Amino acid sequence: MNFASDNWAGASPRIIDALTRGAGGIAPAYGNDDLTRELKARLSSLFGRDVGLLFAATGTAANSLALSALSPSYGAIYAHQDAHIVGDEAGAPEFFTHGARLIPLAGPAGKLTPEVLEAAVARGSGSGSPIPKPAALSIAQATESGTVYREAEISALTAVAKARGLKVHMDGARFANAVAFLEKADRGARLADITWKAGVDALSLGLTKNGALMAEAVVLFEADKAAEIEWLRKRSGHVVSKAWPIAAQFLAMLENDHWLELARHANAMATALSEGLVESGHALGFPTEANEVFAVLPKALIARLRQEGAKLYEWPAAALPESERLGKDADLTRLVTSFATKEGEVERFLEIVRG
Amino acid sequence: MNFASDNWAGASPRIIDALTRGAGGIAPAYGNDDLTRELKARLSSLFGRDVGLLFAATGTAANSLALSALSPSYGAIYAHQDAHIVGDEAGAPEFFTHGARLIPLAGPAGKLTPEVLEAAVARGSGSGSPIPKPAALSIAQATESGTVYREAEISALTAVAKARGLKVHMDGARFANAVAFLEKADRGARLADITWKAGVDALSLGLTKNGALMAEAVVLFEADKAAEIEWLRKRSGHVVSKAWPIAAQFLAMLENDHWLELARHANAMATALSEGLVESGHALGFPTEANEVFAVLPKALIARLRQEGAKLYEWPAAALPESERLGKDADLTRLVTSFATKEGEVERFLEIVRG
Amino acid sequence: MNFASDNWAGASPRIIDALTRGAGGIAPAYGNDDLTRELKARLSSLFGRDVGLLFAATGTAANSLALSALSPSYGAIYAHQDAHIVGDEAGAPEFFTHGARLIPLAGPAGKLTPEVLEAAVARGSGSGSPIPKPAALSIAQATESGTVYREAEISALTAVAKARGLKVHMDGARFANAVAFLEKADRGARLADITWKAGVDALSLGLTKNGALMAEAVVLFEADKAAEIEWLRKRSGHVVSKAWPIAAQFLAMLENDHWLELARHANAMATALSEGLVESGHALGFPTEANEVFAVLPKALIARLRQEGAKLYEWPAAALPESERLGKDADLTRLVTSFATKEGEVERFLEIVRG
Amino acid sequence: MNFASDNWAGASPRIIDALTRGAGGIAPAYGNDDLTRELKARLSSLFGRDVGLLFAATGTAANSLALSALSPSYGAIYAHQDAHIVGDEAGAPEFFTHGARLIPLAGPAGKLTPEVLEAAVARGSGSGSPIPKPAALSIAQATESGTVYREAEISALTAVAKARGLKVHMDGARFANAVAFLEKADRGARLADITWKAGVDALSLGLTKNGALMAEAVVLFEADKAAEIEWLRKRSGHVVSKAWPIAAQFLAMLENDHWLELARHANAMATALSEGLVESGHALGFPTEANEVFAVLPKALIARLRQEGAKLYEWPAAALPESERLGKDADLTRLVTSFATKEGEVERFLEIVRG
Repeated sequence: MNFASDNWAGASPRIIDALTRGAGGIAPAYGNDDLTRELKARLSSLFGRDVGLLFAATGTAANSLALSALSPSYGAIYAHQDAHIVGDEAGAPEFFTHGARLIPLAGPAGKLTPEVLEAAVARGSGSGSPIPKPAALSIAQATESGTVYREAEISALTAVAKARGLKVHMDGARFANAVAFLEKADRGARLADITWKAGVDALSLGLTKNGALMAEAVVLFEADKAAEIEWLRKRSGHVVSKAWPIAAQFLAMLENDHWLELARHANAMATALSEGLVESGHALGFPTEANEVFAVLPKALIARLRQEGAKLYEWPAAALPESERLGKDADLTRLVTSFATKEGEVERFLEIVRG
Repeated sequence: MNFASDNWAGASPRIIDALTRGAGGIAPAYGNDDLTRELKARLSSLFGRDVGLLFAATGTAANSLALSALSPSYGAIYAHQDAHIVGDEAGAPEFFTHGARLIPLAGPAGKLTPEVLEAAVARGSGSGSPIPKPAALSIAQATESGTVYREAEISALTAVAKARGLKVHMDGARFANAVAFLEKADRGARLADITWKAGVDALSLGLTKNGALMAEAVVLFEADKAAEIEWLRKRSGHVVSKAWPIAAQFLAMLENDHWLELARHANAMATALSEGLVESGHALGFPTEANEVFAVLPKALIARLRQEGAKLYEWPAAALPESERLGKDADLTRLVTSFATKEGEVERFLEIVRG
Repeated sequence: MNFASDNWAGASPRIIDALTRGAGGIAPAYGNDDLTRELKARLSSLFGRDVGLLFAATGTAANSLALSALSPSYGAIYAHQDAHIVGDEAGAPEFFTHGARLIPLAGPAGKLTPEVLEAAVARGSGSGSPIPKPAALSIAQATESGTVYREAEISALTAVAKARGLKVHMDGARFANAVAFLEKADRGARLADITWKAGVDALSLGLTKNGALMAEAVVLFEADKAAEIEWLRKRSGHVVSKAWPIAAQFLAMLENDHWLELARHANAMATALSEGLVESGHALGFPTEANEVFAVLPKALIARLRQEGAKLYEWPAAALPESERLGKDADLTRLVTSFATKEGEVERFLEIVRG
Repeated sequence: MNFASDNWAGASPRIIDALTRGAGGIAPAYGNDDLTRELKARLSSLFGRDVGLLFAATGTAANSLALSALSPSYGAIYAHQDAHIVGDEAGAPEFFTHGARLIPLAGPAGKLTPEVLEAAVARGSGSGSPIPKPAALSIAQATESGTVYREAEISALTAVAKARGLKVHMDGARFANAVAFLEKADRGARLADITWKAGVDALSLGLTKNGALMAEAVVLFEADKAAEIEWLRKRSGHVVSKAWPIAAQFLAMLENDHWLELARHANAMATALSEGLVESGHALGFPTEANEVFAVLPKALIARLRQEGAKLYEWPAAALPESERLGKDADLTRLVTSFATKEGEVERFLEIVRG
């Protein structure tokens, strides 16, 4: 019953197959190999336009690298206060951008609203004037609260951003789960529609949590800028000498929509978990849309679940809306499902919850 | 009727005298001159311990240089949300510290409270863990809201800081005004008591607003660290070749307590302005303690004052407490007095206010 | 006939086996897994003291991360002018250290000498005074010229460094090849003797070129500093979420000295290549000690070799000693062997050379 | 007999007059004052085109700020190995540019040649490829060796730079002395001809050594970029609140060519000193063109001069051409004259020299 995180799971067998196939060969170093080229073409086709492609070792690096391409050192970057780049990346955005400032904003269920963004940019970050200079907006898809922006919501935010001269970054550490959700919830979102056509300039595309060992990249929707940004990537130590294993993992995931297949499974497991908890009378902190369930559980129940071997995290209650403040005997918990979650794990978990 | 800012005022005649005296001489460059040495001894005597002394061209540089000595690049720096370092220094703290993060905190009348500081450090800046690493506390004396910390208030804050391993910085851009206020309000605060004895590690001491042309320095209460920090100062371009004019200005200000004499005048002018406004029925945003008056004035009155030649600024109403939200016909204004403010200016201003 | 680089080779089958074993399991993220812990213990045992262990995605990142732990932002880092950190890492050392300066020094066959180091530190880097502040020495083992420092050579350099207050970094991107060489050439060098006992503070240990897919780490010989440096690593985006695959690769390499077995093979292939070239009358730029051969070859021969499918690089002749300047019909070439080099490739290459 | 440095001298009386005039007034802060505006217009007129103007507290800051506007963080900046930015600014260029790399080049008498520049850029800074990315050329006028580039020499260098895509910076810490020299030596150089018309993008214009207390600025020849660069300046703490004293000093110097008058005097003193030394049989390290004399003097003589009260510096002999290596009883010395140097001082000095 591992619901601690999707990055605790191992890897899809197809990932290992892809690495095994490549290991016996010879490939030029530093991304000049055939698989990397093939992946770039594949992504350009998927997104419906020529894209720039820059691997990074982690989602943190992909996010920060993208931000360093979108904001000057004296820039302000607007993001949700619960965003991963704000609370979990140890100052990496500041390091890569040479000191740009994150401006944390509030918003329901992990999502920003156009009104809050507009007010914040209008206000600048200080006494009347925009200091530092408003430079970029960063949104996560899916969000840190496990919710998913609809196409119209993205467009509404980027409209404010563009009007204010901000570049737009999307943190797609769980992009596959978001896409799998939108397939059903938003009339079958096409990748182009929820990214560059909606105003996104750079996407951090992460498939590690999705089932790879290491597959993180920045997808740039202005391909011609990739050459310039490549310099920033080199000096951050993220140009791996053997790049083909990363390309091979991405390709294995994209082949026959394996990435979406895995994400659909993870999402389905989360939905089952979520519905079971609600049926048992427990409240959700946020709607379950991707592969994360935020549930308010009694402390005694959490302890019992752990005794039975469940892995899960308590989550800062500050993320909850004002109206849903917890009593002292309950905690907000986060339960994450993955490609490797088994139906039996969910069932066993719910059994303990029920009784 | 210049109430725009104390840095609009020229300079005390004694400042010009001091520069005139030095201009005919010869002095070793880069701070190896006699006046700089004399000032260092003078400040050590004033503060009651050996201090390190590092000039900077601006208060922004002094603040940021001090912070870069107190926080690593991966550090979090706690400060009031209305602090000058947060809203008015264009990312200088981030630049000098190589990307440390400012954590803006709320507090009444521009002051931090131990409770809010403790809660923020406990929370870290994100999902449950301290990211970036809590490193420093920065308080302003006087504050951006024109209020002044009492000795006991400083000690209460630094007690939290020290218990949490934070270093402490004090922004003294209007330190003279604060000292002049505390002389009366806090049983004659001695300089040592409100700085290093109260737990302050580094003080930005600014006398430019006080009546000099350019007199800004970091006073380090661990003098032996100055040699190391000097490297940081050199590479920030703040080691002026002709340092004696800065030392000369400081010395002229300190001689016979000229700095306090000027500050007492500025404070008295602010008090007169403040009392006159209250008598006329206008509310203050914050108590008037140093040389700044924050008054809620009708927009029509503000327009009339400007017509008559008054200089003043509207101030972000966000700084006001929740309970004192403004009606749509009023604005929060900031009125700053200085060594150069004349009684007649205050009287004329109040006449217009009275109608 | 791939002699382009050892990072063009795929991976040892044991690497794939290790990944396959782990892929089906569940492991805590961010390096809190059992394999990472096991590796730390294994390395501590190998080096004969408790070590700190920090993975990075690349050798560039490992080098720069180590340097950022050894030099302040205002530091000078002394290195050979042909070192990888000087010419091939795109400013990564400057990025990670926030602007420390590399001071390139000359020396025969890619090696620094104590005399040159002493003179450079004495001179500082400018007009009479040490600007920036001398902070660290970085040496490569093996060097960029394919040579290997003997234990006594390392100690002689670190003696100068320590006397001058410099910290010492060793770039071990081809550490295995160096160790395999020293086994025979330097009375069986023990790992401790050529690292921390010889004065090295931090080692970049890279096994990617040795036969892994991605296995790069900083080994810190003051383990208690690792916690502090971990902050620097987090914000550089090199804390991968799934760390067990990196640990698994290291462990597979260290098991039964597989890393040395692979390095001995690569070195033997280089020796064969080198001897064959010398027998055919071609000069070497530097002695062949590890897995790189630097040979002066006629341009016509280089062209013919390429026609036959050989991969190799021309190398900047500036690296050659003054006395061995090339004629206009010849080029210095670099030939790199690897764990995957087959005897037949060497034989075929030498056949073409011979006729 | 102060020949230690021109920044040991006090200030021209006109500087004090200008400060005295301004001290009684009121002026908007942060460069929004009338004098700053007037100066900008004055400089635009002098240089024959609209210029951007950014004050800084020091020449180091002006140089580094200019470089940060001309080079990205991953850029290489080419400069003479004896340049002030290389040896005397403590890593400030690296700090302001966020880690760009200085590439020190050799050249006779402190000057770069097109051949050496071309070769260096062609080579990049490492093994075959341009790493970091060639970005900017920085030349000093006058040079650190007291020599002055002729208009044609500047154009020849900038032609290489422009062909290679490099931006061009000129360090004018002793620009007045250079201009005063070129008036006679280079058919009356006009300011436009030796700056932007010759391919210079940004000039550090320093009049502190020339006779001001503090008058340093970046003059940008693409005025429309100043707004963007202003952000970089703000966060470096070089936007002084009282800017009018700096503008006033510049204006006082430019009025009636006072700056050139002072520079002509300093140059004349240097010429007299230089000729006297040569007549006495002492060799010069470099031709005396501006206000610095580099003379090879017997150590015994240097000691005697000091005994008599002369201030001068030994200079690193490494700056001398190979052919003029010193014997062990002599030292290269630097003698700097200034606006304040008296004829009597030169005469007295030469008397001691003569015996």
